[in-house]
Amino acid sequence: MLSVLRSSLSRVNLHLHSILLARCKSTKEGKTALIILAPGAEEMEFTISADVLRRGKIDVTIAGLDNCEPVKCSRSVVIVPDTSLEQAVNQKTYDVIVLPGGLAGNKALMNSTAVGDLLRCQDSKGALIAAICAAPTALAKHGIGKGKSITSHPDLKTQLMKDYCYIDDKTVVQDGNLITSRGPGTTFDFALKVIEQLVGVDMAKEVAKAMLWTYKC
Amino acid sequence: MLSVLRSSLSRVNLHLHSILLARCKSTKEGKTALIILAPGAEEMEFTISADVLRRGKIDVTIAGLDNCEPVKCSRSVVIVPDTSLEQAVNQKTYDVIVLPGGLAGNKALMNSTAVGDLLRCQDSKGALIAAICAAPTALAKHGIGKGKSITSHPDLKTQLMKDYCYIDDKTVVQDGNLITSRGPGTTFDFALKVIEQLVGVDMAKEVAKAMLWTYKC
Repeated sequence: MLSVLRSSLSRVNLHLHSILLARCKSTKEGKTALIILAPGAEEMEFTISADVLRRGKIDVTIAGLDNCEPVKCSRSVVIVPDTSLEQAVNQKTYDVIVLPGGLAGNKALMNSTAVGDLLRCQDSKGALIAAICAAPTALAKHGIGKGKSITSHPDLKTQLMKDYCYIDDKTVVQDGNLITSRGPGTTFDFALKVIEQLVGVDMAKEVAKAMLWTYKC
Repeated sequence: MLSVLRSSLSRVNLHLHSILLARCKSTKEGKTALIILAPGAEEMEFTISADVLRRGKIDVTIAGLDNCEPVKCSRSVVIVPDTSLEQAVNQKTYDVIVLPGGLAGNKALMNSTAVGDLLRCQDSKGALIAAICAAPTALAKHGIGKGKSITSHPDLKTQLMKDYCYIDDKTVVQDGNLITSRGPGTTFDFALKVIEQLVGVDMAKEVAKAMLWTYKC
């Protein structure tokens, strides 16, 4: 009788352990990011975002705005997306949508109905949207998060001041589900903030250390 | 007679101006860089180097180590080179050869006879060689600059200490024609040092400012 009870308890423990492990996985792992790569995107802002998030164990999909053909970036670095935006959106949902800057790339993001629809859907769920450099103006164009605190490349401040509470003195600004940042030189902090939000501070610290970057919590 | 003299002086001035302009161009512009992109290269170290040098008006050639096919980097970002290393070397000479890190990419650089020959040729002319993260071990493998002061990713310190004067406490180290640096988080400083050497401090400052990066002269 005692051995049967012990065996049952052991099975219950194993079951509880599996549940806890699964929960742990769903919070610590299995997070997804979509980075939209448009022709003329700033290649450093794109590459640092993709690389740092992957170091943070986030499942990153790099989606070409128009299709899955190679994309020529702002300083002529050519990058091959994983897939097209259309395919990426049909495949799954994402815990964060990341918009790199670059003037021409951002203009394409602003002019895209698909990007507008996607951002409004993400925003309506309260899911993360992260935009850097010129890309916060795409948020404005598509009517995302008006009235919230944001930052951007300083050259675009005047375009954003009327719709947002503009922050000058931080490299990264988070207001609810919006994370915004300023330029190539602030992209490490920007990507680490996304890891901090989706995976946790410990992972952000670990990733920063391996890259020889000083993490500012 | 006076008008003839004035006209002659004007022509001489114009000629001198052209010479000075040409000299200015040869020192301020027209500099060339070769970045060798091997499978498994660290994509941030590659992209930041290429982008920053191009912002600094340096004519950058991105050469695939094996051929000109797309290269899968360490965190699966796929980049299309401008040309192959073989073609790049046949086309022209370069004021700097840049080696990004990444363990697998660096292993490929170490195992390449072509890279060894190219680096020894560059070194024999006293021309710049810049290596970051793991890539200083490729310099060691090919017998470049032994005895000089260098740095690298800290994980590779022990491999380099016997052949070099290893510097721990600087993000970028220059000793003559060798520029070395430590990892993704130090790549902006690394690339700006190359601009400083090839184009000048003013350009390095200008590029840093536009990227929202604090330039340390």
